[in-house]
Amino acid sequence: MIYLDNAATTQPLPSALKEAEKFNNECFFNPSALYRGGLENSKAIAAAREFILKSLRTVSHECIFTSCGSESDNQAIFSFAKRGTLVTTQGEHSAVYKSFLELKNRGADVKFVSLNKNGSVNEDELLETIAKGGVRFVSVVHVNNETGAINDVNALAKTIKLIDKNIVFHSDGVQAYGKLPFRLSSDIDLYSVSAHKINGLKGVGALLKKKNLALSPLIYGGGQEYGLRSGTENVFGIKVFEYAAREKLSDINGYYDKVSALNAAFKEVLDKSLFTVISDEKCSPYILCVSANGVKGEVILHMLEEFGIIVGNGSACSSKNRFSRVIDACGYKNNDGIVRISFNPYLEKSDVVFAVEKLNECVEKLGKVMKK
Amino acid sequence: MIYLDNAATTQPLPSALKEAEKFNNECFFNPSALYRGGLENSKAIAAAREFILKSLRTVSHECIFTSCGSESDNQAIFSFAKRGTLVTTQGEHSAVYKSFLELKNRGADVKFVSLNKNGSVNEDELLETIAKGGVRFVSVVHVNNETGAINDVNALAKTIKLIDKNIVFHSDGVQAYGKLPFRLSSDIDLYSVSAHKINGLKGVGALLKKKNLALSPLIYGGGQEYGLRSGTENVFGIKVFEYAAREKLSDINGYYDKVSALNAAFKEVLDKSLFTVISDEKCSPYILCVSANGVKGEVILHMLEEFGIIVGNGSACSSKNRFSRVIDACGYKNNDGIVRISFNPYLEKSDVVFAVEKLNECVEKLGKVMKK
Repeated sequence: MIYLDNAATTQPLPSALKEAEKFNNECFFNPSALYRGGLENSKAIAAAREFILKSLRTVSHECIFTSCGSESDNQAIFSFAKRGTLVTTQGEHSAVYKSFLELKNRGADVKFVSLNKNGSVNEDELLETIAKGGVRFVSVVHVNNETGAINDVNALAKTIKLIDKNIVFHSDGVQAYGKLPFRLSSDIDLYSVSAHKINGLKGVGALLKKKNLALSPLIYGGGQEYGLRSGTENVFGIKVFEYAAREKLSDINGYYDKVSALNAAFKEVLDKSLFTVISDEKCSPYILCVSANGVKGEVILHMLEEFGIIVGNGSACSSKNRFSRVIDACGYKNNDGIVRISFNPYLEKSDVVFAVEKLNECVEKLGKVMKK
Repeated sequence: MIYLDNAATTQPLPSALKEAEKFNNECFFNPSALYRGGLENSKAIAAAREFILKSLRTVSHECIFTSCGSESDNQAIFSFAKRGTLVTTQGEHSAVYKSFLELKNRGADVKFVSLNKNGSVNEDELLETIAKGGVRFVSVVHVNNETGAINDVNALAKTIKLIDKNIVFHSDGVQAYGKLPFRLSSDIDLYSVSAHKINGLKGVGALLKKKNLALSPLIYGGGQEYGLRSGTENVFGIKVFEYAAREKLSDINGYYDKVSALNAAFKEVLDKSLFTVISDEKCSPYILCVSANGVKGEVILHMLEEFGIIVGNGSACSSKNRFSRVIDACGYKNNDGIVRISFNPYLEKSDVVFAVEKLNECVEKLGKVMKK
């Protein structure tokens, strides 16, 4: 199998699972318990927390473990849904986008800023919207999950704070964390990350929060995670996240270069007469979005599957929708020919080249069938 | 080690971990993906869902997987927080209790019904409160997590529906599920369960919901779990939950009898001159709450730990509070001598007897020290 849907999810790292397995065996204790095993698990979580913060090179934030990136996004957004205008982009993951739609349904004043052709936010429009005043909360995705477009969220947050220092700035960093070398600036108040996109387990995420920022719980109860996220801590999942993140961070620049080379090799072999490349050179090398003009992405996906090649068609979370709202917002209207290739640094170049050759073949074949 | 804090958490069942491990290896796919591996994971989740429903012998409910019992409780409660009076008991787990306190802070009309001596709800007071009218939502815990007191939630829900069929009835079944033989009646609209209390993993729960009941998401996004709980599904955790539940349900009556015998053996050896037994014969045999008159529970806990015996002091989720609000509500005011022993069916009787002998010894020794 050649797995090229790493933006949807990744295989948990066997070494991380192995290292954490004691938390399902002899160290399965509830971290809130007062006996030694409980206290040690509480310390094990604290160590994971410290590492996540260190990996983002911040001393200005706290780390709250959640059950997923979507939960992190929801908690950030609904904490600040009380008053003022809330601004986001048309390029957000559904966890942000649908939360904003829900706020709109509840009567909040929400605005969706348009995108550039590659999926990044239209910065001028964003800043003009904010300059009008009354904005309380801004959420801009760090790396777009469909095109890989990078928003310079540190710079954006800085500019926005200069306009109004009281605006709370959130960024969904799910497709950036552990992939792009990045220092989380103190201008960013809230930053969402997820474990299963970087070879951790599904069911674990974190919300990085500026110290002293008042956040509301989404889940009330036993008061875990500084009282901000109740529920018995998923010690095993949190430790697998930490170990996977450690592995990723151990060579984040090397992995970035490796993936950049895989991406370049893919693009080089891609038949430009058959595809429009939506991701441009400014996008994260981890995601490559192309459109097979006139051929359905889902059909291509199933054809490639016969060769053991796994690709995505846009966001897995909206895979059942024929058209992607994000690709639409990039200016490719009613486009159902989307294929998303997303890499990991453990892939072989020869496999990636094989995959793109088969992709070319499939689309050429489908094109001929359609012309008949 | 003799682990007697199974109400706090349990060790994941090795056979369940083994059976599910493929979902972290060759079958790690995102269940929302359209290729075969994704669809198969989606089916694997559907099978888990079917089993949870079957294990509760209901055809009236749907099963929504969540990240924990606390999340299930919160989603149930905050879905119905819009209008009317909300009624619960003083014997709830903090996931329910603190959610009700939050609603109260937000200005909702909430009522906390008092408890009987063993921790069960005062049914007369509950029904009188509801008969006054205007009640929209009722939440009554199935098995109290500190005393093991059982509320007959099927009967209560039935009576409450006769008073007003529009009342939504929720029960936190976290300490009941997989332990008490139980059929979830169609009078119960919402029922919360958790994986890690029955030898599944931390980070997985479910909310059983009556079909056609309109529930609000707590987490918006990709629309997983019938649109009611977004976020990539924790396939591995859900399957471990299913396999652990299958094991528990395979002999739920036998396990119940086994645990009843362990509980009886413990009580028989317990020195009644040193302890007040708070859990009575109507309580779940899985939980035994005693008070060491005048001796602090936390001190006992640490003394027993030296012998490899692990017990709890009330709820793990409130372990840092000196006094338990639930034990207080049972009529044992300012009681800090609480020891909670909670069993599993895999314990040896000889180990349980050893534990209670050591418990007697420790408390006797502490009592003598205090008298000096």
